[in-house]
Amino acid sequence: MKKISDSTIGRLSTYYRTLSTLIEKNVETVSSDEIADINNITSAQVRKDLSFFGTFGKRGLGYNTKDLRDEIASILGLKKKWKIALAGVGNIGRALINFNEFKTQGFHFTALFDNDPKKIGTEISGLKVHSIDDVCTVIKNNEIEIVIVAVPTKMAQDVIDVFIKCGVKAFLNFAQVTIKVPEGVLVKNENMSIELEALSYYLTKE
Amino acid sequence: MKKISDSTIGRLSTYYRTLSTLIEKNVETVSSDEIADINNITSAQVRKDLSFFGTFGKRGLGYNTKDLRDEIASILGLKKKWKIALAGVGNIGRALINFNEFKTQGFHFTALFDNDPKKIGTEISGLKVHSIDDVCTVIKNNEIEIVIVAVPTKMAQDVIDVFIKCGVKAFLNFAQVTIKVPEGVLVKNENMSIELEALSYYLTKE
Repeated sequence: MKKISDSTIGRLSTYYRTLSTLIEKNVETVSSDEIADINNITSAQVRKDLSFFGTFGKRGLGYNTKDLRDEIASILGLKKKWKIALAGVGNIGRALINFNEFKTQGFHFTALFDNDPKKIGTEISGLKVHSIDDVCTVIKNNEIEIVIVAVPTKMAQDVIDVFIKCGVKAFLNFAQVTIKVPEGVLVKNENMSIELEALSYYLTKE
Repeated sequence: MKKISDSTIGRLSTYYRTLSTLIEKNVETVSSDEIADINNITSAQVRKDLSFFGTFGKRGLGYNTKDLRDEIASILGLKKKWKIALAGVGNIGRALINFNEFKTQGFHFTALFDNDPKKIGTEISGLKVHSIDDVCTVIKNNEIEIVIVAVPTKMAQDVIDVFIKCGVKAFLNFAQVTIKVPEGVLVKNENMSIELEALSYYLTKE
């Protein structure tokens, strides 16, 4: 299988959302031109992204919205209920627990972790806060595969190392620091202040 | 001036953080190799990114950490205090108000907006929640240049349109939808669930 770029995968997620909106509106077929137009990209890009995964749609007839969404769901692994954990129940962490889009897309918070004795043992939105010391047991018992890390910057690498030792291979990291991981482990970074800096760069260079 | 890619700008933000950490540790000079190693990229990439903006450092001597951080701060527009507004004071919005990294990098929340009559007029972290109807007045009086949008997906386009009419040109959008904007306006998207889908794709294709 060819190496697919992160950008292609990101656009598949976007197409998935576009198709969901169209299906909600009872639209049964859609062309690559229409998908492209909704997302401000070219139709050649849409066709290229999809071509990595097979032949979808019929020439001249476009794509069946439900079939294409279904195919993309398979590609992205969205047909499964993913059990995820949250490390760090501060402001950002607590907000994420209540972020409905995660659940809509099949990502369910199953365990919370923190190192603050005042938080450990309490419940947030019906989920118990566990000690970082209990990571391996809780991860195994709950079959957790993805961990969202919302701990202070200086602790992020150490916390992620603990989860890696317990077998976790996929992380979404909100700490603004580059994390080093062994091969076979993927960390995606959610760099909110870096996005803001792209805006200040844009406004400054004008 | 050449068109600089978003990836280059994102890496400059990362180098800025690397240099800040080194300066905290009293490190006075650093090589492109060292910056590269900390961030899991090649030193050729570091040199190429910096070369777009001039000649920094001395051949064989590396970069002075404070000078280079200062240059990058100028490029990214980080020497100025940016006044930012938040549209939507739900879970995510409230968490962002307390996200310290924004302030550290020079982005200061100055106004909050919501359309919920129960929230309008209240204060959160010392900032008054204004009605979306008052956007133009509040934006102008407070010289706000960047707006963070954390409203429900279906409202995002309409809310951003209101701010654009009042002269705002830069947005950080947390709603999971592609926003259409006229030329001269930049929207950066914070797609948290799309990043999670990149992880589920990664775990699925294994």
